[in-house]
Amino acid sequence: MVGKRLQPSRLVVPPDDEESTIDYFYDVPGSMPGTLNIEPDAPPPVIVLIDYSEKTAIRLQVETPEECAAHLDTESVSWVDVKGLGSEDILKRLGAVFTLHPLVLEDIVNVPQRPKVEEYEDQLLIIARMVMLRRSGRSFLTEQVSLILGKHYLLTVQEEPENDCFATVRERIRLNKGTIRKHNADYLAYTLLDSIVDGFFPILENYGEEIEELEDEVVANPTRQTLEKIHKIKRELLTLRRSIWPQRDAINALIRDGSDLISDEVRVYLRDCYDHAVQVLDMVETYRELSSSLMDVYLSSVSNRMNEVMKLLTIVSTIFIPLTFVAGVYGMNFNVEKSPFNMPELNWYLGYPLCWAVMIAIATVLIVFFKRKGWFENFSTVKSRD
Amino acid sequence: MVGKRLQPSRLVVPPDDEESTIDYFYDVPGSMPGTLNIEPDAPPPVIVLIDYSEKTAIRLQVETPEECAAHLDTESVSWVDVKGLGSEDILKRLGAVFTLHPLVLEDIVNVPQRPKVEEYEDQLLIIARMVMLRRSGRSFLTEQVSLILGKHYLLTVQEEPENDCFATVRERIRLNKGTIRKHNADYLAYTLLDSIVDGFFPILENYGEEIEELEDEVVANPTRQTLEKIHKIKRELLTLRRSIWPQRDAINALIRDGSDLISDEVRVYLRDCYDHAVQVLDMVETYRELSSSLMDVYLSSVSNRMNEVMKLLTIVSTIFIPLTFVAGVYGMNFNVEKSPFNMPELNWYLGYPLCWAVMIAIATVLIVFFKRKGWFENFSTVKSRD
Amino acid sequence: MVGKRLQPSRLVVPPDDEESTIDYFYDVPGSMPGTLNIEPDAPPPVIVLIDYSEKTAIRLQVETPEECAAHLDTESVSWVDVKGLGSEDILKRLGAVFTLHPLVLEDIVNVPQRPKVEEYEDQLLIIARMVMLRRSGRSFLTEQVSLILGKHYLLTVQEEPENDCFATVRERIRLNKGTIRKHNADYLAYTLLDSIVDGFFPILENYGEEIEELEDEVVANPTRQTLEKIHKIKRELLTLRRSIWPQRDAINALIRDGSDLISDEVRVYLRDCYDHAVQVLDMVETYRELSSSLMDVYLSSVSNRMNEVMKLLTIVSTIFIPLTFVAGVYGMNFNVEKSPFNMPELNWYLGYPLCWAVMIAIATVLIVFFKRKGWFENFSTVKSRD
Amino acid sequence: MVGKRLQPSRLVVPPDDEESTIDYFYDVPGSMPGTLNIEPDAPPPVIVLIDYSEKTAIRLQVETPEECAAHLDTESVSWVDVKGLGSEDILKRLGAVFTLHPLVLEDIVNVPQRPKVEEYEDQLLIIARMVMLRRSGRSFLTEQVSLILGKHYLLTVQEEPENDCFATVRERIRLNKGTIRKHNADYLAYTLLDSIVDGFFPILENYGEEIEELEDEVVANPTRQTLEKIHKIKRELLTLRRSIWPQRDAINALIRDGSDLISDEVRVYLRDCYDHAVQVLDMVETYRELSSSLMDVYLSSVSNRMNEVMKLLTIVSTIFIPLTFVAGVYGMNFNVEKSPFNMPELNWYLGYPLCWAVMIAIATVLIVFFKRKGWFENFSTVKSRD
Amino acid sequence: MVGKRLQPSRLVVPPDDEESTIDYFYDVPGSMPGTLNIEPDAPPPVIVLIDYSEKTAIRLQVETPEECAAHLDTESVSWVDVKGLGSEDILKRLGAVFTLHPLVLEDIVNVPQRPKVEEYEDQLLIIARMVMLRRSGRSFLTEQVSLILGKHYLLTVQEEPENDCFATVRERIRLNKGTIRKHNADYLAYTLLDSIVDGFFPILENYGEEIEELEDEVVANPTRQTLEKIHKIKRELLTLRRSIWPQRDAINALIRDGSDLISDEVRVYLRDCYDHAVQVLDMVETYRELSSSLMDVYLSSVSNRMNEVMKLLTIVSTIFIPLTFVAGVYGMNFNVEKSPFNMPELNWYLGYPLCWAVMIAIATVLIVFFKRKGWFENFSTVKSRD
Repeated sequence: MVGKRLQPSRLVVPPDDEESTIDYFYDVPGSMPGTLNIEPDAPPPVIVLIDYSEKTAIRLQVETPEECAAHLDTESVSWVDVKGLGSEDILKRLGAVFTLHPLVLEDIVNVPQRPKVEEYEDQLLIIARMVMLRRSGRSFLTEQVSLILGKHYLLTVQEEPENDCFATVRERIRLNKGTIRKHNADYLAYTLLDSIVDGFFPILENYGEEIEELEDEVVANPTRQTLEKIHKIKRELLTLRRSIWPQRDAINALIRDGSDLISDEVRVYLRDCYDHAVQVLDMVETYRELSSSLMDVYLSSVSNRMNEVMKLLTIVSTIFIPLTFVAGVYGMNFNVEKSPFNMPELNWYLGYPLCWAVMIAIATVLIVFFKRKGWFENFSTVKSRD
Repeated sequence: MVGKRLQPSRLVVPPDDEESTIDYFYDVPGSMPGTLNIEPDAPPPVIVLIDYSEKTAIRLQVETPEECAAHLDTESVSWVDVKGLGSEDILKRLGAVFTLHPLVLEDIVNVPQRPKVEEYEDQLLIIARMVMLRRSGRSFLTEQVSLILGKHYLLTVQEEPENDCFATVRERIRLNKGTIRKHNADYLAYTLLDSIVDGFFPILENYGEEIEELEDEVVANPTRQTLEKIHKIKRELLTLRRSIWPQRDAINALIRDGSDLISDEVRVYLRDCYDHAVQVLDMVETYRELSSSLMDVYLSSVSNRMNEVMKLLTIVSTIFIPLTFVAGVYGMNFNVEKSPFNMPELNWYLGYPLCWAVMIAIATVLIVFFKRKGWFENFSTVKSRD
Repeated sequence: MVGKRLQPSRLVVPPDDEESTIDYFYDVPGSMPGTLNIEPDAPPPVIVLIDYSEKTAIRLQVETPEECAAHLDTESVSWVDVKGLGSEDILKRLGAVFTLHPLVLEDIVNVPQRPKVEEYEDQLLIIARMVMLRRSGRSFLTEQVSLILGKHYLLTVQEEPENDCFATVRERIRLNKGTIRKHNADYLAYTLLDSIVDGFFPILENYGEEIEELEDEVVANPTRQTLEKIHKIKRELLTLRRSIWPQRDAINALIRDGSDLISDEVRVYLRDCYDHAVQVLDMVETYRELSSSLMDVYLSSVSNRMNEVMKLLTIVSTIFIPLTFVAGVYGMNFNVEKSPFNMPELNWYLGYPLCWAVMIAIATVLIVFFKRKGWFENFSTVKSRD
Repeated sequence: MVGKRLQPSRLVVPPDDEESTIDYFYDVPGSMPGTLNIEPDAPPPVIVLIDYSEKTAIRLQVETPEECAAHLDTESVSWVDVKGLGSEDILKRLGAVFTLHPLVLEDIVNVPQRPKVEEYEDQLLIIARMVMLRRSGRSFLTEQVSLILGKHYLLTVQEEPENDCFATVRERIRLNKGTIRKHNADYLAYTLLDSIVDGFFPILENYGEEIEELEDEVVANPTRQTLEKIHKIKRELLTLRRSIWPQRDAINALIRDGSDLISDEVRVYLRDCYDHAVQVLDMVETYRELSSSLMDVYLSSVSNRMNEVMKLLTIVSTIFIPLTFVAGVYGMNFNVEKSPFNMPELNWYLGYPLCWAVMIAIATVLIVFFKRKGWFENFSTVKSRD
Repeated sequence: MVGKRLQPSRLVVPPDDEESTIDYFYDVPGSMPGTLNIEPDAPPPVIVLIDYSEKTAIRLQVETPEECAAHLDTESVSWVDVKGLGSEDILKRLGAVFTLHPLVLEDIVNVPQRPKVEEYEDQLLIIARMVMLRRSGRSFLTEQVSLILGKHYLLTVQEEPENDCFATVRERIRLNKGTIRKHNADYLAYTLLDSIVDGFFPILENYGEEIEELEDEVVANPTRQTLEKIHKIKRELLTLRRSIWPQRDAINALIRDGSDLISDEVRVYLRDCYDHAVQVLDMVETYRELSSSLMDVYLSSVSNRMNEVMKLLTIVSTIFIPLTFVAGVYGMNFNVEKSPFNMPELNWYLGYPLCWAVMIAIATVLIVFFKRKGWFENFSTVKSRD
């Protein structure tokens, strides 16, 4: 979808209807900075607090943002996961509990924003974009995830309460798998970012398969649907590129800019995550170039087929039109009796056989001509391949 | 419109006739720097002074620029808003009151200029470009807004007295909504810039919808109008890009270059405004790539349809031309009585039925041939989709 | 013109014949640096000296370069304007009077050079390219202007004695308009550069109009001439870009590099001149993209028209070929008397009317078929728009 | 191959089936960093240790990674070459022996990774991509080679036990050819990198030949296979570019970044290797541009041929259709006896010869017309060239 | 030529057969650095020593490299010019005499290398690429020239003993023209580089002329040869660009990097040489864009002509097919005597004239229709221009 928003007054994009892509958020021109635009049909926020240290890990579904406050200053890592943007009141109270800058709250709520990293006094705001395959398989939906990293806590805000790609991370915390519970909140932020970036790969996989199918289709049997599919892929790859490009830059900024909130050890891990983002971008660009090339192949293929159609028409017409003319001549009714010049052929003893001979001669010459130009060979090749 | 200016002597662009785009201003070659080119039909300037502090806010429509002078050095913020460029006298007196550099005055008056930021001794010149949807909905008009930021004042100069996108800002000042009256003139400048940048989104929205409509049209029913529309969108997106690209750079320069007139707090807000400008540019580029792709789709789609037309012609011709030849043969008038070789078929008992049998056989063979090549299937698909 | 030079021995481009564009100058490979290549048909140099200070201004047409020498070291500004490159002797004596580096003299004489700025001990060499509309209106000619800026003098060398775009500047000096006589030679150099840059605008204006005309022509009535015009515009815009691009860089170098010969005050004015060069480049790039898009529109438009031609042919052929076949059948001469199977229709009471009925039925079915596919509608739209 | 992986659960690419290209590795989103994904059908690792100094060189096939440990700290250079990734146990023990960072081990095992250089405390990780011609000749397979450079050792890990391009290097060590045994492990790493980069040339050679063949084919006889071949080349060149581009950057990073593990002398050699990588990239880009141009030539060539087909059809139709009409007229059966106006020509004495005269006149006029337009000439040229 | 090398075992490019372009040199993967690959058919080296100072200049054809040794350390400038790479022995002894680094010797011998500048202890290696017009005029051959600049000597190595573009330089030394004998070896190196760069211009000249011819041909009479020529130009311009691009960078490196071997005075001259290299690149890029545009014009032009062919066919068919149908109707043999409904027209008194009237009416209506659509006008324009 490119711009489904029909009423200028409705300023937030429905991010998950069947055809949605990322249309960036915009304010009403002239509106105050920090204005929150709550979509009427946004789901109410669900807040889950996971608090863990190397030894223990608890998971609480809290009702009010204030319940989290007690956990934030403890040494243990507190992951507050908010899903759903449907209540201005709760979101503002959340901002108060975490002492968020008004612009941070605006960026979190007024989705979609461009992925970015911004440093505030003792917090780091990371806006990321998560992509997930639809159940139908061939398309994807996107969702903004905002991460606010503090000294011992991580606040994540998602648009939708339903899916995310963090299930494995929660499992690793719960079961104390790997080293996640030995690290601080910055490692958790890295883990989530890594999950988000890795989530692009299955979608690219799909496009890889689709392009492969189209490569056969476009030469063997180019139809109108093929054309639509190629354009659709180009459009969706543009969307993917628009999501991953700033995300890569954001991760790079995390590595390069010396924020105290990110330890050197985690920086090494982020380098790995950055490599994956670059890989995603590589693949997106490769697929874009392939689909552009496919468009050229399509046009050439259609022209090629038209050429074959034309050849058939030309062969048939060129052979039969002269013959029909000959037949037409001897169908004329000039009065034979009036003059010896009037169609004497009609009275010849071998008139009819001679007429056939002439016609067969004409046809033979033309067939030999077309054979020499190689039109039949080409043609039969094509036929046998269909 | 690309270059409507027919008389080399008329040096200022009419910025708002139905077809206008941004053609940059140019001087008569060799004219003095600082020369003001007043368009004959430019509306006379209307000057409005809004002076506010946290506690009070007044709004005056002043007659002469000199009336503003008293307000400029006070602690309260003075926003002098000039609309209309139709009087050289008033503009020069304005320049005197605000002690503007001659080049600043030239940039303000000789519209359109390229968006930019320039630092002068104790002033900052910001040239911005405002876009507004036309009432017709499908096109937009653009207008230059020049902002001159001083310590406690902001001078804004617009081309047209009619619309701008600052109504909400005036309302916020009047009603003391948000924090605008607590800040200095730099915050006001940010607020106006933000309104200008946000004003691009509704226009992009429109292009999104138009492209979406064209995506259907271009495959289903590509006509000459479709082609014109695609080219028009490409042309207008070029204009939009030319407006927003330097604007983004200008905002970035405001953030990076350490002018004393911009406080650090406002710099944080400008970062947000910069993000929005990047989003606008992102969308413009995406739409441009989509419309380029649409042009390719158009050509392929037209070729595809021609192919179908050709197939129909070829099927009909290839089947009927041989049949017509057969009929032509037996319409010949060779004299049957002169020789047993002359068209004996005409006298056969089953001559006519056999002739039909031959013709039906030929037609059947050809139909089977076309069926095998899949021409009918393709064809019927197309028909049913129209 | 792309390379009109047919004799490898003739090494200088004729810069102003009807088809000329900028082909850069080149030496005979291996020739000494500083070799002057005087074109045989170059006009002899005309030297005009304008010497002015705030109070006085004189204008002398001098015969020998040596006459200028006395003026160079005075406090007043001396503008030595040389037009025409047709005398090696005079040019060498000029080099001696101004103590020019051999490479500077080569750059001045061996036109065309790429626009650039080079700093020598106490001189600044600025190579610029001036464009002027031809009288015919639709094309332009270019000429190299070399500026050598010293402490109190400016030497300008032009290729042709006839036109330049400095008339207004001379007028301003003569009449003491504006502040030009209050400034030093660097301001004069800026003024001339500004005139040169502003000289690009009327030419771009013309291309704007031509593109606008082509936009209509290319959809309404694409002919061979349209194609030639689009390619011509693309070629000439390439030339313009090749002229303005290095010019912009040269002006930027003047602003950034801290030569003592340019005062800070003039730097502010050069910034304005730089903005204009960027505007020119902006417009050139926009027009280039538009003309590329026009080429695509052309191809699509031709395909579209071919499609319409094909449809007409197909409609007529598809309707009449079967009918002609039917008529052909009943033109056959099978002997009705030999057998009841031989063309009994010919003897039916309603044979002929039935035959017409069949033919009309076939035609009706086909017309309905084409109507359903929308071929007629499309077709009539087209007709009515021509 | 673009995305052969059909099951989202199978996360490692089969890197060497007939159609494979480089699809980058990806983790299951949310999986732990350092997770090793062992492909079920990966061959078990074979470990070969080559230990050499200037005087001696030994070669051991070791069973367990631990056997290598003793050699690592000696002054002699130890090259541990591991081929095959089929055992998680052995790979983990290898990681323990060489004290590899978990992310290094992940990069080595979870192929394919993007070529890169990463510095760890006292090790340097170089990920490279080796390409080898298939036996079939026209395609290539790629394999990841990971190099871990320590003070006196080099660990190399390859995906496949079968081929590599290091045979000559092993020979040089064994026979003490050149200076390789006089240098440290960094020189060995350079030698291997150089072999890998030089391995791209024979493959590019092949593409050069293929493009040359296509250049003839595309103009002389453009078929559907030509189109497929051009697209295949474009796709494979994209893969090659994706391999060599980051490799070039990685080598550059080795030269620029001052790691202690690379001596200045070897840096000079790496500069040479970098030049070769740039040459490879140069050729890849040139071939890509050539194949894009070929696609354009293809389309133009097909259009050109269609034009010739159309001309033939038009010549034949335009000449014979009017003649057939004339013949048709005199085949009409108007009753000559009913009126003197009814086809009196049929009873003329020279009716039939006159009729022929008219037909020959029509044909002659048309033939002259086509000759003047140059259709025959063009046509015969084409014929004679086939 | 794109990859003429058919045997993978033959690893050095034949650089001068009729179709050659620059395919970069490559080693056998894994071969030792410094390995010299002597082509079997390379001509044996010819060594010429030119030793000059301001007062004297001698020219010796020496047999062995050792003869040069005595001249190298003297104050006079020694130019050792080696032409031909056919003897490994001599080349290695040359390396010994000049104490060349093994990689330098490899770069000199294993041609072609990418143009570059490399600094060694007291030597500067400059790899350049010389282009020369073939005698046939329309194509060019390229040759590598390696320059090794020492304190008082310059070693140049060329591939071929036959031509180079240094004749004028030798003449200037012999006759003491200009200042060349007053300068050191660095000035000589500059002079040669300048000759090499200036050698590109005559070749570009040729392409300019060829493109100009093609511009006419492509619209007036686009044939298959036109297409081949455009593609050939694109391919050769790619080769030229690949030669001049790194050359420009190399010259820039010479200017910027502060090697002691280049004096400041010569740096000024190199700046001039750099400008020429930029001009060459400018022209190459311009010609590439023009030839890309020509390809588009070609396709459009072919489509346009096809359109005209189609129109002719359609006009003729659309007019005569209905007429032939009418004639066919009255050629039917329905038995007039059996019924009054059977073709009563045949017995009408004015049957035949009425029939003609109907046919003429049909034709007139159609001709008017085509005239209104402007098909004839277009058509006649085209005809008159051929």
